[in-house]
Amino acid sequence: MPYVNIRITNEKVTPAKKAQLIQGVTTLLKDVLDKNPNTTVVVIDEVETDNWGIGGETVTERRKRGE
Amino acid sequence: MPYVNIRITNEKVTPAKKAQLIQGVTTLLKDVLDKNPNTTVVVIDEVETDNWGIGGETVTERRKRGE
Amino acid sequence: MPYVNIRITNEKVTPAKKAQLIQGVTTLLKDVLDKNPNTTVVVIDEVETDNWGIGGETVTERRKRGE
Amino acid sequence: MPYVNIRITNEKVTPAKKAQLIQGVTTLLKDVLDKNPNTTVVVIDEVETDNWGIGGETVTERRKRGE
Amino acid sequence: MPYVNIRITNEKVTPAKKAQLIQGVTTLLKDVLDKNPNTTVVVIDEVETDNWGIGGETVTERRKRGE
Amino acid sequence: MPYVNIRITNEKVTPAKKAQLIQGVTTLLKDVLDKNPNTTVVVIDEVETDNWGIGGETVTERRKRGE
Repeated sequence: MPYVNIRITNEKVTPAKKAQLIQGVTTLLKDVLDKNPNTTVVVIDEVETDNWGIGGETVTERRKRGE
Repeated sequence: MPYVNIRITNEKVTPAKKAQLIQGVTTLLKDVLDKNPNTTVVVIDEVETDNWGIGGETVTERRKRGE
Repeated sequence: MPYVNIRITNEKVTPAKKAQLIQGVTTLLKDVLDKNPNTTVVVIDEVETDNWGIGGETVTERRKRGE
Repeated sequence: MPYVNIRITNEKVTPAKKAQLIQGVTTLLKDVLDKNPNTTVVVIDEVETDNWGIGGETVTERRKRGE
Repeated sequence: MPYVNIRITNEKVTPAKKAQLIQGVTTLLKDVLDKNPNTTVVVIDEVETDNWGIGGETVTERRKRGE
Repeated sequence: MPYVNIRITNEKVTPAKKAQLIQGVTTLLKDVLDKNPNTTVVVIDEVETDNWGIGGETVTERRKRGE
């Protein structure tokens, strides 16, 4: 029954990688809290780098500097 | 003043259906809790099936099996 | 499979009212989008009036003025 | 370490405006709560006007009436 | 830089279990997407069973039936 | 009409500080995007330090080390 929301920057994450994240989080919740995988929901949000800020600036700016 | 966030998979939901959801939730909050419709906010997020997981796998995989 | 998050101020909402909201939203998603009620998740967050702002001020302040 | 999520309608917000929002919120959290800007995360979600409801109707409808 | 929000019912999860979840998710994001653990944020929300609905009813009701 | 969610650790933030955050964010959205303050909603979530992770560990652990 858990609901997990993973928010990451939109930088070419493949469907295979997303499937790995979903499986990994679902397994973790089963292992740590014995949560039923059948009702564990995982939603991945991919956010444009213009829309993600850290340290007071956008990730777009940071990427330009090679960070 | 309530804020409601509805998250669904992105599978061709028409603007008319979205309007129905928004109206329905707003009316429900008026009926059950007497919340003022004028300040009730409803936001619908449509999530790609690659990004939505349940039962440890993506909805894309489930749809391939006809589920 | 939808996930719905209802955020309201924490002002003595009874368990019966919460159950009504949950049932109402689940039925709405079934009626409008034919979503399976068995996997529809609804989470209600009750937020203290000090922590909810609208119009640039807290709901606590508004309630003091009788709004 | 704060996490701030700003949700607005998707109506041609420029990258420069987004950068201003991110900087402004980060500075506010430093000024008011002495939060370290280096670990303050700000995520902006732009939501289609069909998907945003207020007063029981979509913003698309309201915009048509010039509101 | 990812932000992960884990929402579970409030049913006596110990601090040690929470620490395991946080470590597990952070490691997963490092392994799958090479995300820097130092800026990965994980927030766990524990929700009262009266406030969590699935299948159109509260978890409180389900627990009463031994589910 | 914007909705802003500020998530911080629960470490004795006074009502006055919360009111400052709400006012500050509302003013920022007015100044940068000309958003109407009357319908700008700001919700502050205070999260226990056991439930907030960064760098793979809880904030509780970090606070113990004086960070």
